[in-house]
Amino acid sequence: GNGVSPAKKLCLEQQLSYAERAKLPDVHPLASKLLLMMEEKQSNLCLSADVTSTKELLQLAETLGSKICVLKTHVDILKDFTSDLGQKLQTLAEKHNFCIFEDRKFADIGNTVKHQYEGGIYQISSWSHMVNAHGVPGPGVVKGLSAVGKPLGRGLLLIAQMSSQGSLASGEYTQAVLQIAEEHLDFVFGFICGSRITKRPEFIHMTPGVQMHTGGDSLGQRYSTPEDVIYHKGSDIIIVGRGILEASDRLKAAESYRKCGWDAYEKRLSQSSK
Amino acid sequence: GNGVSPAKKLCLEQQLSYAERAKLPDVHPLASKLLLMMEEKQSNLCLSADVTSTKELLQLAETLGSKICVLKTHVDILKDFTSDLGQKLQTLAEKHNFCIFEDRKFADIGNTVKHQYEGGIYQISSWSHMVNAHGVPGPGVVKGLSAVGKPLGRGLLLIAQMSSQGSLASGEYTQAVLQIAEEHLDFVFGFICGSRITKRPEFIHMTPGVQMHTGGDSLGQRYSTPEDVIYHKGSDIIIVGRGILEASDRLKAAESYRKCGWDAYEKRLSQSSK
Repeated sequence: GNGVSPAKKLCLEQQLSYAERAKLPDVHPLASKLLLMMEEKQSNLCLSADVTSTKELLQLAETLGSKICVLKTHVDILKDFTSDLGQKLQTLAEKHNFCIFEDRKFADIGNTVKHQYEGGIYQISSWSHMVNAHGVPGPGVVKGLSAVGKPLGRGLLLIAQMSSQGSLASGEYTQAVLQIAEEHLDFVFGFICGSRITKRPEFIHMTPGVQMHTGGDSLGQRYSTPEDVIYHKGSDIIIVGRGILEASDRLKAAESYRKCGWDAYEKRLSQSSK
Repeated sequence: GNGVSPAKKLCLEQQLSYAERAKLPDVHPLASKLLLMMEEKQSNLCLSADVTSTKELLQLAETLGSKICVLKTHVDILKDFTSDLGQKLQTLAEKHNFCIFEDRKFADIGNTVKHQYEGGIYQISSWSHMVNAHGVPGPGVVKGLSAVGKPLGRGLLLIAQMSSQGSLASGEYTQAVLQIAEEHLDFVFGFICGSRITKRPEFIHMTPGVQMHTGGDSLGQRYSTPEDVIYHKGSDIIIVGRGILEASDRLKAAESYRKCGWDAYEKRLSQSSK
């Protein structure tokens, strides 16, 4: 061992701010960019922009862009997608300083995901800074995506846990996903998860299913609060969809989630430095 | 018990022909249609039409349609998809008597997959007879897809195992997927798997990664032979992609796979009736 006890190690790691983690020697360049962005904007809020109209998606990016660090999209639910959308989103991402995350959940063999990531109508790799994938196909899914995304400076999040009821992503499955990530540090920079799954400060943890109140929907979704996710579960980014989209004042709701998430982060930092 | 030993039961079940299984009282209507089609065409061959041009996809459906029972598509890798493709594929499916299977591998929470299945540019539910999903999100993924597909008479295959190296779909994961299927018999009619995972004759087992010779690709894909998949592993349908697409004479290759798959099925039937 290196003479530092596991408890001490944990404490040291938990003290690191987003900005400090951005400067770690082994951090993925995209993770570094994102962490600095988060610190600068005081936002660990990812908006899950699950809308079906391109106009509404672009409006959300424009009006809420200053509140968020990541805009999460599902381009395959847009009824009026056109090939200029990627460029428009990128322009807004630069203007408001956020990353684009197409929530594609790639889950096929390497040879297939390569085509799905690069080609087709959506050409996801050309405009989305980050994408995610399930570990279920094994490491080939990461290799296939990496062949396309790494030369472009993109990064991958692996889905280690899910917010839905009865998800099979738990226990050994989650550990196996972590191992795949650790074997592909040049492309995988974080996780979709319910709580922090590794102490490596280079990895970014993003947690979906966040609302101000716990509960769920009729199709198995379950909700956690920003405080729970960031302070108690040790995750880095809250992913909020319906909590903002269904609010009468979306900007006010986004600001409220941003503040809650940020306060929970500062509380965590101050606790661990005691 | 009903007085029949497990070994005897297994034997009785294995004796059932595709046509006999099509008439079982609890069989899904789409499975019934597919099983009858297979018997009539003497084909348990699914073509994995992994091409990036719409013209080539339609040509494949036209020229190989008579040899196959299922045409498996990835519309999201087509560089020139247009909204009339679904109708064109359906016309060819009726002409040549095969089912369309968009290999979307849905893997999100119920509320999201509903939109991905029904909406967007692809409107998959409007033209694909069957789709597949990963069990990793838990039962909500099936409920979400069923809400869209069941009223249209569609059916779902759950991915219980994968052909790629290091896949996490094994052991307890596979058993959990089987359980989700058994709880949704009104919509789930079968599995993507390496070998038969249940003795229930109502379920159709489809196996990808089939070539005439074993081996693999550089991104973790592994191949099994038609004989191995149908005769030894007890699956029902072979899914063949590169084995046909990369042949100099695709029609000849398709006929060769059809015959191999069918011979293996007849051999299995004759063995179990001894």
